[in-house]
Amino acid sequence: MSKAIQDLYPDNLAHCYGCGKNNPDGYQLKTYLVGDETIAHFTPEEKYTSIPGNVYGGLIASLLDCHGTGSAAAFACQAEGISLEEAPIPVRCVTASLKVDFKALTPMGVELELKGKLRSIEGRKIWVDMTLSANGTVCATGEILAIRLKD
Amino acid sequence: MSKAIQDLYPDNLAHCYGCGKNNPDGYQLKTYLVGDETIAHFTPEEKYTSIPGNVYGGLIASLLDCHGTGSAAAFACQAEGISLEEAPIPVRCVTASLKVDFKALTPMGVELELKGKLRSIEGRKIWVDMTLSANGTVCATGEILAIRLKD
Repeated sequence: MSKAIQDLYPDNLAHCYGCGKNNPDGYQLKTYLVGDETIAHFTPEEKYTSIPGNVYGGLIASLLDCHGTGSAAAFACQAEGISLEEAPIPVRCVTASLKVDFKALTPMGVELELKGKLRSIEGRKIWVDMTLSANGTVCATGEILAIRLKD
Repeated sequence: MSKAIQDLYPDNLAHCYGCGKNNPDGYQLKTYLVGDETIAHFTPEEKYTSIPGNVYGGLIASLLDCHGTGSAAAFACQAEGISLEEAPIPVRCVTASLKVDFKALTPMGVELELKGKLRSIEGRKIWVDMTLSANGTVCATGEILAIRLKD
């Protein structure tokens, strides 16, 4: 397993509320590359509710967004043989488009698991397909088109 | 201008972190029906950053999600002649699918404006198109498929 992708971002691009190690108020989501997929875990605080007992959609979208850009960076590094053991990596992606399909209510009080699979890379464009699961059930799927920032 | 749609939700369905009046920790987004469109305003706190100086995508997706379900409820009420002056309204929608396209960086420190337009209603399915703007520039667009909960 790699180091967390978000811990390898350059320090000046690590302030994201969703995943930046330099944002003490944020979620600090951590995405890992494992084989040919990416994985992250997150347990929402009780306040992030929608219908009582369930997680609100905005948090789910936020987690998929940050896991998506992190996954895109990881897959770009993997494609180019860039080590994920040493910071900073020369790859940082931002979101051009995010689609989230909500398949089932996401229960509160359990650890959520996010997974990502590379669909394709074309130049600076990277597409990633994702799932967000709770207790082994897929509660949401995500598709992201991430854009690699120029050096 | 109507009352805020989210202030008309039944009390037991008003805990959403993004827009519930009964969630004291949340964003408490307020969506209003004005003519044939919906509108909401929100000024993010500084901590919700992405690249420093800009708003992170997760918050943008969250605002569009809650403005989308609120807009769907408002348009459903409008279509059926249900008053938006008296709580509770008998309509509450949840998100089936949300797509966000990020068009430009969203600057921090200014009031954001969200707008919604009804695309169509088919039974319990309601599609709404949205924009999120800062200083008059569209920074993101959103499409939502909202599902009206059964009574």
